[in-house]
Amino acid sequence: MTSKSSESSYEITETIKSICFKARRAWFSLANLPLDKRNEILKLLAKKIQQEKPVILAANEKDLQLARKNKLTSAILDRLTLNDKRLESLLLSLEQIVALPDPLGVILDKTVRPNGLEISKISVPIGVIGMIYESRPNVTIDAAALTLKSGNAVILKGGKESFYTNRSLAFCICETLKELKLPEECVTLIPFKEREAVLELLKQKDKVDLIIPRGGEGLIEFVTNHSQIPVIKHYKGICHVFIDKEADFKKAIHISLNAKVQRPGVCNAMETLLVDREIARDILPALISEYKKENVLLKGCEAARKIDPTLEAATEQDWKTEYLDKILSIRIVDSVQGAIEHIELYGSRHSDSIITENKTTASKFIQNVDSSAVFVNASTRFNDGFEFGLGAEMGISTDKLHARGPMGLKELTTYKYVIIGKGHIRE
Amino acid sequence: MTSKSSESSYEITETIKSICFKARRAWFSLANLPLDKRNEILKLLAKKIQQEKPVILAANEKDLQLARKNKLTSAILDRLTLNDKRLESLLLSLEQIVALPDPLGVILDKTVRPNGLEISKISVPIGVIGMIYESRPNVTIDAAALTLKSGNAVILKGGKESFYTNRSLAFCICETLKELKLPEECVTLIPFKEREAVLELLKQKDKVDLIIPRGGEGLIEFVTNHSQIPVIKHYKGICHVFIDKEADFKKAIHISLNAKVQRPGVCNAMETLLVDREIARDILPALISEYKKENVLLKGCEAARKIDPTLEAATEQDWKTEYLDKILSIRIVDSVQGAIEHIELYGSRHSDSIITENKTTASKFIQNVDSSAVFVNASTRFNDGFEFGLGAEMGISTDKLHARGPMGLKELTTYKYVIIGKGHIRE
Repeated sequence: MTSKSSESSYEITETIKSICFKARRAWFSLANLPLDKRNEILKLLAKKIQQEKPVILAANEKDLQLARKNKLTSAILDRLTLNDKRLESLLLSLEQIVALPDPLGVILDKTVRPNGLEISKISVPIGVIGMIYESRPNVTIDAAALTLKSGNAVILKGGKESFYTNRSLAFCICETLKELKLPEECVTLIPFKEREAVLELLKQKDKVDLIIPRGGEGLIEFVTNHSQIPVIKHYKGICHVFIDKEADFKKAIHISLNAKVQRPGVCNAMETLLVDREIARDILPALISEYKKENVLLKGCEAARKIDPTLEAATEQDWKTEYLDKILSIRIVDSVQGAIEHIELYGSRHSDSIITENKTTASKFIQNVDSSAVFVNASTRFNDGFEFGLGAEMGISTDKLHARGPMGLKELTTYKYVIIGKGHIRE
Repeated sequence: MTSKSSESSYEITETIKSICFKARRAWFSLANLPLDKRNEILKLLAKKIQQEKPVILAANEKDLQLARKNKLTSAILDRLTLNDKRLESLLLSLEQIVALPDPLGVILDKTVRPNGLEISKISVPIGVIGMIYESRPNVTIDAAALTLKSGNAVILKGGKESFYTNRSLAFCICETLKELKLPEECVTLIPFKEREAVLELLKQKDKVDLIIPRGGEGLIEFVTNHSQIPVIKHYKGICHVFIDKEADFKKAIHISLNAKVQRPGVCNAMETLLVDREIARDILPALISEYKKENVLLKGCEAARKIDPTLEAATEQDWKTEYLDKILSIRIVDSVQGAIEHIELYGSRHSDSIITENKTTASKFIQNVDSSAVFVNASTRFNDGFEFGLGAEMGISTDKLHARGPMGLKELTTYKYVIIGKGHIRE
């Protein structure tokens, strides 16, 4: 099977419409389930995955063979791979989601108005969520588990590279729902590889309440430009660490190193290091030597290259680039204000950190850097649902509305006003 | 001046880009202002409006003359009109917004993780907000006041009918900001009547964080279809009252009447009355006679017309129509389930009410009607920021994400994670 269109346009359109229609209908059964029933789904799902392990691994092998044949990069092959260890961690994640408190039915606010009207603001599921993601098949289970626990129906569109793996995982979800006599349309994996299917999904504004795209620039732009449904983007991270002139050098070196090399391929890794001009000569040589030990390719602005001429020259494009690799750009700036301005111009409002012992400088940075997470003396790598104690996450939202930063169970809910009167009319 | 393009495309595009760029820059001055400074803006604005009253009323008269010349409807003329009483209520609304608590800097959550990282989730302004609205000029002041108090910059695009009035109000805002030595670009009124200006605004996703369209179907669809920026819609209200078989008839008649006739031209007025088949014959005659006294044009389904043949026949289109007028469709349904299904099919997820003395039936209705506000024994007309005790409002969001129902100060904020470490790195 190739990724070329093997289905007719008409079939794709009609199937997507029908999936959305059924998902909305199924949602009502799910939204009214008590917590223990929603947890039961996740527990049974974990069992099914264990039972189906050989089938899942065989499907994954099929995807991997195709990926090798199509000469996909080793990074994609790595993200695509499932093995015993990764399945174990997937099951652990299910267990953790079960243990999390119920996000539904929380009374967020309650007032009795002077006229006696009782107004409550209560957390409820969002409805039907469309999740569009790329190669990692574990997202299929994480997204299904989080949406089910929060009472939402979900329509999944995984990457074409993980087509067979996703199908085997979706089979487990489907069997679980059937066994519990719940409508299987609570979770639907879109059965097409064609982008046309995504286009059609993005039009179903009466049935689908939210679209979450998680992936690279191309996917996110495509979804944002075509969606008639509200979108929460899980976009790129151009993250910065700024070493202030009043930084503790030991902390600065540890954090700058960790933010870049501990896992360079993820969105909360640092891409640009900013250094205060006043201390650049004192700290850069030691730091550069540490990066070289870790085989990081270093680029620098002109001032940085005066301190160490072995740095490659960074271009305007470098400041805008999410390398997701062992590559780092270094820029020397004039105090915290210079760092704030650089981040405003080039950052992606994801995660930025300042290293300083001066609280006033830290406050200025916190107030003026418009990012989902602003760190003081800590690595940007901590911007993560698990590290924040939210349990699992759908991803890290780079948007500002509804969900910002890690998107967990709570961010998968909205609210409804419930107003109880005694025959109240408005004068 | 006509509404035809009098400005070149190039000038519009460049001006809008520049407005957005400057608004973002101005935002940083505003976001960091303490509460008393933000309140000072609103207090001084109230004074300026009082001083400029003759100019504002003259500008309004110019708009009204043009509107009469263009033969706009009396409803539009009414919405467009400013007079002493309406200016008074505008000033009162400013006073009320001043009195509201600060929505910024609220610590929404704070945890210390096992590794010692201190994580706070803090309310912050959203950034730059684009507000696109139609004829009512009071929205210009309400929107500016709410966004300024919540630390947001705002770009206003009013209706072309209120062009001169809006310009005179924007002048007051501008003078206020200048006098307080704040960048006047915190609030900008788009100086063009052309729709091209809106199109260009909807593209500025790097500078503008949120678009709020408030108005009729045409405006909302245009914005939703063209925006690359997240949108929170303030859309139509197809609101329902359902009279259950266990309703108290006196309450039922009062509420059904109030929801339709107290102010028919607004979004939270009822458009369709649903009546349980079991009590239709007992309650409809009395109710219909009340509506007739109020000159309400009544339409009904076949079953309703069997009870009262004077009702016009309601068509499929009627169930989907927001009349905003003294017109009502009546449908007889089979119990609460029938009401839920009708609302699911035809409602706009705005405001729906059940009249019943049975708590189980009420619960079923609350759980299964997916609307921003669900009422029990109260009029839908209460879905309103002021009635909910939120002070003023930007409008009533018909979206589910970020803000649902009345959108006040709190809904004009987002949050930021602030993480304080002591040299923390991720293992």
